[in-house]
Amino acid sequence: MDFILALEILGTFAFAVSGAFAAMERKLDPFGVIIISFVTAIGGGTIRDILIGDLPVSWLMNSTGISVIIVSALASLLFTPTLRKLSNLLLIFDAAGLGLFTLIGIEKGITHNFSPGICIALGTITGSFGGVLRDVLLTNVPMIFQKEIYASACILGGSVYFLMIYLSVDIAITQVVVIVLIVTIRLLAVRLKWSLPNSYRK
Amino acid sequence: MDFILALEILGTFAFAVSGAFAAMERKLDPFGVIIISFVTAIGGGTIRDILIGDLPVSWLMNSTGISVIIVSALASLLFTPTLRKLSNLLLIFDAAGLGLFTLIGIEKGITHNFSPGICIALGTITGSFGGVLRDVLLTNVPMIFQKEIYASACILGGSVYFLMIYLSVDIAITQVVVIVLIVTIRLLAVRLKWSLPNSYRK
Amino acid sequence: MDFILALEILGTFAFAVSGAFAAMERKLDPFGVIIISFVTAIGGGTIRDILIGDLPVSWLMNSTGISVIIVSALASLLFTPTLRKLSNLLLIFDAAGLGLFTLIGIEKGITHNFSPGICIALGTITGSFGGVLRDVLLTNVPMIFQKEIYASACILGGSVYFLMIYLSVDIAITQVVVIVLIVTIRLLAVRLKWSLPNSYRK
Repeated sequence: MDFILALEILGTFAFAVSGAFAAMERKLDPFGVIIISFVTAIGGGTIRDILIGDLPVSWLMNSTGISVIIVSALASLLFTPTLRKLSNLLLIFDAAGLGLFTLIGIEKGITHNFSPGICIALGTITGSFGGVLRDVLLTNVPMIFQKEIYASACILGGSVYFLMIYLSVDIAITQVVVIVLIVTIRLLAVRLKWSLPNSYRK
Repeated sequence: MDFILALEILGTFAFAVSGAFAAMERKLDPFGVIIISFVTAIGGGTIRDILIGDLPVSWLMNSTGISVIIVSALASLLFTPTLRKLSNLLLIFDAAGLGLFTLIGIEKGITHNFSPGICIALGTITGSFGGVLRDVLLTNVPMIFQKEIYASACILGGSVYFLMIYLSVDIAITQVVVIVLIVTIRLLAVRLKWSLPNSYRK
Repeated sequence: MDFILALEILGTFAFAVSGAFAAMERKLDPFGVIIISFVTAIGGGTIRDILIGDLPVSWLMNSTGISVIIVSALASLLFTPTLRKLSNLLLIFDAAGLGLFTLIGIEKGITHNFSPGICIALGTITGSFGGVLRDVLLTNVPMIFQKEIYASACILGGSVYFLMIYLSVDIAITQVVVIVLIVTIRLLAVRLKWSLPNSYRK
């Protein structure tokens, strides 16, 4: 459990920092930076909970998450150069967050008895739609729709999750494999500059 | 019922294709194309259901709709030139979707006992806000706010609906008239390049 | 009570007019102007109610608010030059709306037993996220994130609210003080061109 909590905090931190940096690049004021940080970190889970109807959304009742985000946003504002130097570390945290949040979304879908396809969609939304909201608020076309293997990693991880469940693999092993798989795909995609093709016949 | 289902599938197809084409124009990757397709097709009903509190939103439990959308998005990716040649047909499907989805939204409002004005608003949201989400995600100013008679057709159709109900016209006749009216206005608007004026005194 | 109602109507009017003017600047058609007006005036409360799960959102059942908004939008379209001349008055109404809506959001949070920090966040969302939606729909980076002391006034007002409650000050006095405080900060910020700094070390 402590391992999961650590992953969740590191992932939240990485998501919040990515939001803060994007906001600073657009010259938002400190208040705007904190809000974008916040939306990036909790946006995916919030959209998932609204679609499911699991309201009030969980962060309204979870002061740990909010504290982590505010600390992350303030750290981004105060220690910008240091954090920029740690970009490799942040990338790993971000991938960890992506893997864990996707898993959380999938399992929340299962507890609501949705079909595997919907559970994978909910996992993908949980992992990647905070970044979509961040980009929309900053009037950028959402990055995950155009540049990188990001949501694709969630979808692949989610498919492996249900395959392993179907094969009666132990749930704890399945969870670890899925997180490791998503993290690996994501990190490889960044390192090897993988992307999906985007030219179409007219 | 089969007629309604056919209309719904054709409308969903047309909405999904319009989303896919808009996404391809912005050079999104195939995953982005599928997501924008999806959001365009289910966005209006999703916003309506969230505002009403009718959660989980229906597409989480409706695999037909999702299948139609994924097939539509893949068809848009694979058969782009063919679909472009069928633009007239797509326009008719799109108008059919607009009419039908508006009607569905109005009647959902009635089952929740909302006032006629609110029911018309819910119908308009159902019919046209998928396109609003599509445009926001692609950072375009929503087309329906500026260029064309689109939402206006929903509002007019909705008003006629309640007028006919008030005059005790048979419900099935009312439904057909409203759909035909919205489709006709929409198609005429495109053919005759109708639009609302948009210059204002300073 | 009549005083509160008057504040609410004036605030709604000012929010709706600000939406209408922003929409006219982007050359939206009259229908688009009315929608942006609407979203600006009810967006903050709508996001709050969705996050809390207090659905259907209240404006679906409140024809007064909707009537005020439609009248405001039509007035903006018809009497543009006159309303522009009254910009000082509109600014005061807008500040009054900000103060009142923030207070309403805070107290709604309290009735749901959220912590003070969350109540302040809900107040800030109620007061200022209508403007965020307006800016996103018009593809502007939300103004409150970059230019002006706006949300900061809500946060400060909310903090004073809980401080006074903690000190057992009478609730009616607290409410008046909070509204006056938010209005004053907001008006001073505009007059003295206060803003938060937004350059960061790279």
